[in-house]
Amino acid sequence: MASYRSLKEQVYEANMALVKHGLVILTWGNASQIDRQHGVFGIKPSGVPYEQLRPEHIVLVDLDGRVVEGSLRPSSDTPTHLVLYQRFEGIGGIVHTHSRHATAWAQAMRPLPCFGTTHADAFYGAVPCTRPLTDEEIAGEYERNTGLVIVETFEKLGIDPLHVPAVLVAQHAPFTWGKDASKAVENAVTLEEVAAMALWTLLAQEAWQNLTPVPQSLLDKHFWRKHGEGAYYGQG
Amino acid sequence: MASYRSLKEQVYEANMALVKHGLVILTWGNASQIDRQHGVFGIKPSGVPYEQLRPEHIVLVDLDGRVVEGSLRPSSDTPTHLVLYQRFEGIGGIVHTHSRHATAWAQAMRPLPCFGTTHADAFYGAVPCTRPLTDEEIAGEYERNTGLVIVETFEKLGIDPLHVPAVLVAQHAPFTWGKDASKAVENAVTLEEVAAMALWTLLAQEAWQNLTPVPQSLLDKHFWRKHGEGAYYGQG
Amino acid sequence: MASYRSLKEQVYEANMALVKHGLVILTWGNASQIDRQHGVFGIKPSGVPYEQLRPEHIVLVDLDGRVVEGSLRPSSDTPTHLVLYQRFEGIGGIVHTHSRHATAWAQAMRPLPCFGTTHADAFYGAVPCTRPLTDEEIAGEYERNTGLVIVETFEKLGIDPLHVPAVLVAQHAPFTWGKDASKAVENAVTLEEVAAMALWTLLAQEAWQNLTPVPQSLLDKHFWRKHGEGAYYGQG
Amino acid sequence: MASYRSLKEQVYEANMALVKHGLVILTWGNASQIDRQHGVFGIKPSGVPYEQLRPEHIVLVDLDGRVVEGSLRPSSDTPTHLVLYQRFEGIGGIVHTHSRHATAWAQAMRPLPCFGTTHADAFYGAVPCTRPLTDEEIAGEYERNTGLVIVETFEKLGIDPLHVPAVLVAQHAPFTWGKDASKAVENAVTLEEVAAMALWTLLAQEAWQNLTPVPQSLLDKHFWRKHGEGAYYGQG
Repeated sequence: MASYRSLKEQVYEANMALVKHGLVILTWGNASQIDRQHGVFGIKPSGVPYEQLRPEHIVLVDLDGRVVEGSLRPSSDTPTHLVLYQRFEGIGGIVHTHSRHATAWAQAMRPLPCFGTTHADAFYGAVPCTRPLTDEEIAGEYERNTGLVIVETFEKLGIDPLHVPAVLVAQHAPFTWGKDASKAVENAVTLEEVAAMALWTLLAQEAWQNLTPVPQSLLDKHFWRKHGEGAYYGQG
Repeated sequence: MASYRSLKEQVYEANMALVKHGLVILTWGNASQIDRQHGVFGIKPSGVPYEQLRPEHIVLVDLDGRVVEGSLRPSSDTPTHLVLYQRFEGIGGIVHTHSRHATAWAQAMRPLPCFGTTHADAFYGAVPCTRPLTDEEIAGEYERNTGLVIVETFEKLGIDPLHVPAVLVAQHAPFTWGKDASKAVENAVTLEEVAAMALWTLLAQEAWQNLTPVPQSLLDKHFWRKHGEGAYYGQG
Repeated sequence: MASYRSLKEQVYEANMALVKHGLVILTWGNASQIDRQHGVFGIKPSGVPYEQLRPEHIVLVDLDGRVVEGSLRPSSDTPTHLVLYQRFEGIGGIVHTHSRHATAWAQAMRPLPCFGTTHADAFYGAVPCTRPLTDEEIAGEYERNTGLVIVETFEKLGIDPLHVPAVLVAQHAPFTWGKDASKAVENAVTLEEVAAMALWTLLAQEAWQNLTPVPQSLLDKHFWRKHGEGAYYGQG
Repeated sequence: MASYRSLKEQVYEANMALVKHGLVILTWGNASQIDRQHGVFGIKPSGVPYEQLRPEHIVLVDLDGRVVEGSLRPSSDTPTHLVLYQRFEGIGGIVHTHSRHATAWAQAMRPLPCFGTTHADAFYGAVPCTRPLTDEEIAGEYERNTGLVIVETFEKLGIDPLHVPAVLVAQHAPFTWGKDASKAVENAVTLEEVAAMALWTLLAQEAWQNLTPVPQSLLDKHFWRKHGEGAYYGQG
């Protein structure tokens, strides 16, 4: 029981960190963490505003998907978390957000390419994007099927989910994971930032042509009025 | 009267929430809420800075457009709110903002397409954009005509305003609504976010070509200096 | 003298408001206000960090450009302010910033078009962009020539500076003005916002093609799991 | 020793300023400063979260790259700083960030052109981008080679590092420097801002065509309902 109190605290802290990092507005996100020894994970309750969330609200769910503690309904995305905990055995925490730029890539249904070391530090290659769900998968056990299509994506591409701890769900949004909920949050922060950087990188590459920099005279004027012996900017 | 005090409080809170969510700068926005039983709605006074706004400043207006309580002039957009309350009978609150990305779509005079579940959670399909007002409509009862063109848009397209509780007014900005002012604010927050996401989605789709990701050697270096047995980043 | 104390206070408040509104970082901006009766304007001292600025630091300058009070050197842009006060007789306050999006338009050397009512509320038509200064103008009385090219722009285009209280200086950044420094700040806030909106408007217009919205099945799933009788999101 | 206490304080302050200015998230950045008299520089320890960082954590390293004081491991980028202090003799402080827009330029592997005076005030011409490192350079002394390719870039292009105190490392991120760590931070702030402005400048230049501004009637309506004798916006 003591371990569950700690589990709930950590899940609570991870959920609040999503707000602090600007990854979540309204109620659009959730974090969970699993206690592998007892086969139980804690997850945010559904639709509870973050400003009202308390550690005791965290719902405990077992690996058969049954609520084992908590009076609130768990996140509607619980079946997705469940599949990931079942199939990605090395992971201990999961985060789901609708962070702006990562979601844009998911909506564009493009894998997020690795354009630099910021990305490479956290994700060992492109962050994959799932195929869209079929009408049948959407009409059926939708949230469970979301988990299954994530697993399918990693299996088909032969990616180790511990090496690329993130995915873009097509027409939906990202999920990230890690050894615990805190690490999953860190990966969600990184994913959002590299998603934004990648967009600007592509725009810079495309737009960079027919450049007309300022004339030398303007460069001279502005640089030297602030630097060197003749400077007259500031209080000297 | 007690119900009016509560109405004013709720309209005040909704207006302040617009600032808190970053949807409004200067005095560019307003929120209202209707008491259907008494046929009276409360709305922000015109041009009052948010930092000076108090619940008692909220102006009460009846469904004939007459001020029934309040010493300040109501928002210049009051006739637009009035038309919407008259014609969209199921709504209880209205918000008008000039939030950056939603306004960009309105200025581009394009409906905002539904690219993902963030949008689908709140709006059942594309958020429509009105036709531009004619010179006559602008020169005449401009704010009332703004309301009428919104109603016309929903009727022409056969959209239920309760299913798509938002509109883009061409060359102007968005309006949102809901069962009360608080829900209309929530829809304004969602609209701004999905408007931004949709722009980035389109940019990602267009820019995604001729990608040159980093070489494998750089990927290896950065990922493995932080992960696994040979890692030397951090305090070990 | 009492009026100068008030003048300094107002100039100080306007300068601090630039920081509060996110229009200025480091020391990149300044606000001034004129006392037309005494022919004296107060302006920010050059290169003083905003966190150290105090009302008594404001430098008083007369309409011949001579410092009449203050121990610090006035802003290096003082000669630009001076020309504007001399030639635009109806104005009482001036603001100069390097705010991000307005500066992008100035660097692109394009007038900022009026795409919507947010712009039309403050600026009666496109905000003009000056021609670039010549090498001679840059090497000579640079800051004074910056003022002169602004005046030239309004004269050539036949624009009343009270109707369009803003300008983009090519390859440089915006200036705005108004009846006092506070109004000039408000116009600087508006200019930055409409500059950003206009960029997004153009991007929306260009990118809007070959749209592939989400399938109906996904729209149904997400909208109806949160709305109506079968909803299962939230605490019910 | 007293000077080292002051050195550590200044390095600490510079590192914290990176967070305050929004240039660094998580642990992605570092600042250092050298005491040229003693040939010792202080640098951030590796992987320590900023909220836990204290002045006494700053690690002192000599110009042979040996830790001379401090119990924590220095930043993994220490060999890059070392090369720059060895080869750019006029510099006293160095900053490394992964700030969003500057990193986008580095990832696009394009030099950052000077489009305006905001840039010219700090950098005397385009900020260069290095060539990508070779596989051998990456597999070898990677962080030292990063420093060497920066030096190579300035030598090849004949740029004085005191005139352009910044560089974009291809597929990685920016470094900036200055007479001390505080000035290097200021240059990092400027670099990020002009990197963003340059992107928007290019987008404005490209997108600016087939403009359709609002009709005159809408312009008249909105401007004159807020200005002049017939105005009815606000409290009159």
